[in-house]
Amino acid sequence: MSQSITAAVIQQAVDSNDKEQNLDRTEALIKEAVEQGAELVVLQELHATQYFCQVEDTNYFDLAEPLDGYTYQRCADIAEAHDIVLVLSQFEKRATGLYHNTAQVIDGDKGRVGVFRKMHIPDDPGFYEKFYFTPGDAEGFLKGFQPVQTRVGKLGVLVCWDQWYPEAARLMALAGADMLIYPTAIGWNPEDDTEEQNRQRDAWVTIQRAHAIANGVPVLVANRTGFELSPSGSGEGIEFWGTSFIAGPQGEFLLMADSESEGAFCAEIDLERSENVRRIWPYLRDRRIDAYDNLTKRWLADRQLP
Amino acid sequence: MSQSITAAVIQQAVDSNDKEQNLDRTEALIKEAVEQGAELVVLQELHATQYFCQVEDTNYFDLAEPLDGYTYQRCADIAEAHDIVLVLSQFEKRATGLYHNTAQVIDGDKGRVGVFRKMHIPDDPGFYEKFYFTPGDAEGFLKGFQPVQTRVGKLGVLVCWDQWYPEAARLMALAGADMLIYPTAIGWNPEDDTEEQNRQRDAWVTIQRAHAIANGVPVLVANRTGFELSPSGSGEGIEFWGTSFIAGPQGEFLLMADSESEGAFCAEIDLERSENVRRIWPYLRDRRIDAYDNLTKRWLADRQLP
Repeated sequence: MSQSITAAVIQQAVDSNDKEQNLDRTEALIKEAVEQGAELVVLQELHATQYFCQVEDTNYFDLAEPLDGYTYQRCADIAEAHDIVLVLSQFEKRATGLYHNTAQVIDGDKGRVGVFRKMHIPDDPGFYEKFYFTPGDAEGFLKGFQPVQTRVGKLGVLVCWDQWYPEAARLMALAGADMLIYPTAIGWNPEDDTEEQNRQRDAWVTIQRAHAIANGVPVLVANRTGFELSPSGSGEGIEFWGTSFIAGPQGEFLLMADSESEGAFCAEIDLERSENVRRIWPYLRDRRIDAYDNLTKRWLADRQLP
Repeated sequence: MSQSITAAVIQQAVDSNDKEQNLDRTEALIKEAVEQGAELVVLQELHATQYFCQVEDTNYFDLAEPLDGYTYQRCADIAEAHDIVLVLSQFEKRATGLYHNTAQVIDGDKGRVGVFRKMHIPDDPGFYEKFYFTPGDAEGFLKGFQPVQTRVGKLGVLVCWDQWYPEAARLMALAGADMLIYPTAIGWNPEDDTEEQNRQRDAWVTIQRAHAIANGVPVLVANRTGFELSPSGSGEGIEFWGTSFIAGPQGEFLLMADSESEGAFCAEIDLERSENVRRIWPYLRDRRIDAYDNLTKRWLADRQLP
């Protein structure tokens, strides 16, 4: 693993479900990133299509693809052509009636080196993901939180709603992740006022920076931008807030995009800093693993004696 | 529980180990808070003395007190006189040779209603806490993370180094804490440059705001201010960075002190907001408790097959 890498997060607006066209645009942005020296490129959540989860519509299962489908093939070609590590996100059809929200990691001409299926699935008005996606399996010793070994280090890939869970970030770090990666698709309800919108975006930035801090690893976040109307015409649509960013292991910003620009945003990440930060802030040393059993409980307050 | 409370965090500089004098000053600041309407007042870590952990010196065990000692008595009198909920922090002598870094919660004339013994103990140059403090017990069903019921709600009291652990915040929230409270004593090494100092303070603010966000509860932080020389004359001393703050359940700032001022910093906390925030961001609904077992492990990367 090199001491320092150049990484890019790609922030895109998507105005149709034409995958070929969308991946053409993605390819052009990846090329821009590569021209800036990027060895690792992270794409946003479900980048090949619009964010169809604004409604529950069985027709959208047509957008799903197997792991080896069109989106993977295009991305594998791109990663091989540019000899980069690429993190893609897709609507995965695993079997008839069984779908996931899945990230794949491709390492140059090696092709796929790892898969992560979103573990925490949201369901809110305009984000009806529980209708489409089965949560990732909790299989094997690592229970689904398995970082992926690549030439640039072990990538702790998680997806969107997972970003609100310190548990997920911690488990990836304990499993050896050298950095945390979040493809995401989050935005504002245009009906919320500016104060509420700012609070929401600030919370989203803050909690992901905190995962960097708690675990002493960099965090890379690629978020969608642009406005997407609800396909049904109901609802107010979503104004995706962009703001893709990369933070170092103290949560310090290495890069932050604005809310509206499409682009390939690049930063240099000094992987050696984690070594130093974990020396001055040795949180892993002092975890009270003898006192954490209850983290596997749903709720504790109703189990106490009065 | 009322829907809205006024809370204060007290930020003090401490220039001697004269407890009577220091608690006189604390009492004056609490009075200021009460005049601003405070019903809940949080004191900083080890407020009755200087931060003696800059060196390892057995003489400092003289500063420790039992739970019913001088500091508690003074605070109980103050809490009763002003009819407030007061969170104190002390060096506790539990038995000969057995000491803790302990917070106590006093509710008006009821006196002590709860005790929390710091669970995560740091040990870094200038912060030699492992020499002085035994980590809190992991006893009972809640394993040490027991919120305290008071008239203003259930207080999830933690202490300083605990603040870097999302596990601690989560366990308090699962046990029903309505807010999280951190008495703390953290500062800069004056030898670090301004950039590093800012990164450290920013990380400290960020991770505590993230606990608010992850759990949908307000967070109150009272930190020491002022410069304290190392008692041994060795080391550079600590420039405590103040910056006490109160954040709401989306991590939004309700109040933030500067790094240098002493004072009683008050804010109104709308406890009803947690209800609303947890409705729009229902993280508790989606925790993958089937996949979190490994949070009780020290490290996972060395257990994987190659």
